[in-house]
Amino acid sequence: IKQTAMTGARVGKGNFRHFMLKEIYEQPAVIGDTLQRYVNPLARTIEMPALPFDFATLPRLTIVACGTAYLAGMVAKYWFEQIARVPVELDIASEFRYREAPLPKGGATMVISQSGETIDTLAALRYAKSQGQKILSVLNVPESTIARESDLVLPTLAGPEIGVASTKAFTTQLTVLACLAISAARARGAIDHKRETELSQALLEVPARAAEVLNHDESIRRIAYDIAETRDVLFLGRGTSYPIALEGALKLKEISYIHAEGYAAGEMKHGPIALIDENVPVVVVAPSDDLFEKTASNLQEVMARGGRVIFLSDHKGAKKLGGKAAITVALPQVDPFVAPILYAIPVQLLAYHAAVAKGTDVDQPRNLAKSVTVE
Amino acid sequence: IKQTAMTGARVGKGNFRHFMLKEIYEQPAVIGDTLQRYVNPLARTIEMPALPFDFATLPRLTIVACGTAYLAGMVAKYWFEQIARVPVELDIASEFRYREAPLPKGGATMVISQSGETIDTLAALRYAKSQGQKILSVLNVPESTIARESDLVLPTLAGPEIGVASTKAFTTQLTVLACLAISAARARGAIDHKRETELSQALLEVPARAAEVLNHDESIRRIAYDIAETRDVLFLGRGTSYPIALEGALKLKEISYIHAEGYAAGEMKHGPIALIDENVPVVVVAPSDDLFEKTASNLQEVMARGGRVIFLSDHKGAKKLGGKAAITVALPQVDPFVAPILYAIPVQLLAYHAAVAKGTDVDQPRNLAKSVTVE
Repeated sequence: IKQTAMTGARVGKGNFRHFMLKEIYEQPAVIGDTLQRYVNPLARTIEMPALPFDFATLPRLTIVACGTAYLAGMVAKYWFEQIARVPVELDIASEFRYREAPLPKGGATMVISQSGETIDTLAALRYAKSQGQKILSVLNVPESTIARESDLVLPTLAGPEIGVASTKAFTTQLTVLACLAISAARARGAIDHKRETELSQALLEVPARAAEVLNHDESIRRIAYDIAETRDVLFLGRGTSYPIALEGALKLKEISYIHAEGYAAGEMKHGPIALIDENVPVVVVAPSDDLFEKTASNLQEVMARGGRVIFLSDHKGAKKLGGKAAITVALPQVDPFVAPILYAIPVQLLAYHAAVAKGTDVDQPRNLAKSVTVE
Repeated sequence: IKQTAMTGARVGKGNFRHFMLKEIYEQPAVIGDTLQRYVNPLARTIEMPALPFDFATLPRLTIVACGTAYLAGMVAKYWFEQIARVPVELDIASEFRYREAPLPKGGATMVISQSGETIDTLAALRYAKSQGQKILSVLNVPESTIARESDLVLPTLAGPEIGVASTKAFTTQLTVLACLAISAARARGAIDHKRETELSQALLEVPARAAEVLNHDESIRRIAYDIAETRDVLFLGRGTSYPIALEGALKLKEISYIHAEGYAAGEMKHGPIALIDENVPVVVVAPSDDLFEKTASNLQEVMARGGRVIFLSDHKGAKKLGGKAAITVALPQVDPFVAPILYAIPVQLLAYHAAVAKGTDVDQPRNLAKSVTVE
């Protein structure tokens, strides 16, 4: 008999109206479960299983995935490159599998998938393997086809995810990837012991901070009622907040059928700013990090053109902006390294409540399947 | 007195209603001018100036740009990796300049810009230079700040581009990049002489094929009237047609303010397919290449969900699909290598005519500047 770890996750909707909402609320617990697997809480160090390659000499890490898992990979690219100085190539699996990418000798490919059955991701894995790459996978279902074909599986401990729109699978993927990035940084001598303990500590605090973020549920619900009335929404962010902006847009598209689009805040001037008028809410993801001032200046360009800004930041950020945005959500102050894990939650809630307000089928949106096993 | 080559380009609108339309129509001529600079038409070989690095030993090429120029870089990534087997890293300049990307020793960075003054691209260039990278630039204004800071400039010979939405700058950028990819493939021994002459021949035929594409202007205008009535449009493509889908969406957003979004056709099932109903036209960019069957199958998924497909393909593709799409535009049959240059034209015309039908200011769309010299 095989036991599956499921301390933070429960099957059944419990008191929740939808699986998606239940899964959003499980995040503090399942992120905690996942951290328990990879972080030593006393030493505040990362403990990874033996990898099939050595990060110290790895020429490049290739990350391939689809949908929300791809966006987890995009956050990871920033993390690996910034703190571990490992060059990362990132691609969508349906493109990667056919484009005959040249892969480096001695390289490794990491695939990310909730189900472990995503057909394009599996085909990408097989291409990478045929090119001599070692295969690492980050999966929520460790008894899956992708797991069987990987050299090493790093499981996310999200428990069963029922809602079609991925929530807790995404944040636990980010949790595993953050741990792996720290471990890679240590192996490459890119961070010292002190920095490792700081980053690990920041990760260990995520479950508590995630619970605080959930306290904003009611205020986000009110914003979502407003969003539900609109046809188009833009999401903007820079750095690791850029993939969170893309994820917010993807969630909203998936379950509320509102045409939302995510953009790198600095790219907005090269096109999408033309869309902005008083009818297009613009959600700006901007924790107070090194890029805050730059994002704030893009936000002011949006407002100067009549755009209605929903500003997701922290207390420091809210203070700096001085209440200029139409709506501000001030999340807890955290180390910018872990911000993407936490800022994923308000964009999930925004999409969830907008879908409920619109009356769409939240757990089973039209045209979508939970696990995409066709091309 | 410095003379600027301008055989195919004329200043002034001539008989055209807008600069943008004039510039779209100039493409056969200015692509021809650009080819004349880089292709030897008798030998059918590529002739590049001496590069500041050797493609034969280049570990990686980093390409950085903004907006439409970024999409030219995305097409180039496919070209360089497929035919020359050079690993390419591609990034948006506003992200690249701040994310402290690890760059390889002996690497080169290529920046692409119409004006040569794009501030984020210039900052990206300076970061790459500080990391010891050789700098190559593809520019339409060779007397510009980026030109002065580059080790080598490869000019596009588009002549002055006045319309804010880039058209002929894009297709001439693609032309230069195609020539450079062939030259890199030769240097790395990835193609033989015969293949070089075939690819060069395909490029030499682009001006004539581009003129044929312009013959579809009237039928595209009729499609655009229909598009002008809608709020949302999706553009899909695979491989080098994926950046063309993104470019089609960007153009439409920029000048008609219709919320268009481009997607890799294989990613559609991971979210945006939820948006599709009878009110959302879906433009599918699908020349009959190796990926045609895969894209055709995505197109059928769209139709099965009530989506109205506008199918941009060639005679062979149109025949294969057997008139299943709502509207088919059958462009001339070309070598798939040069297809992105040609398929850029119908998506430009679609955006142009939709904007004219909506009565927006085509040459000077709201909120946008021609050359983005602020962050």
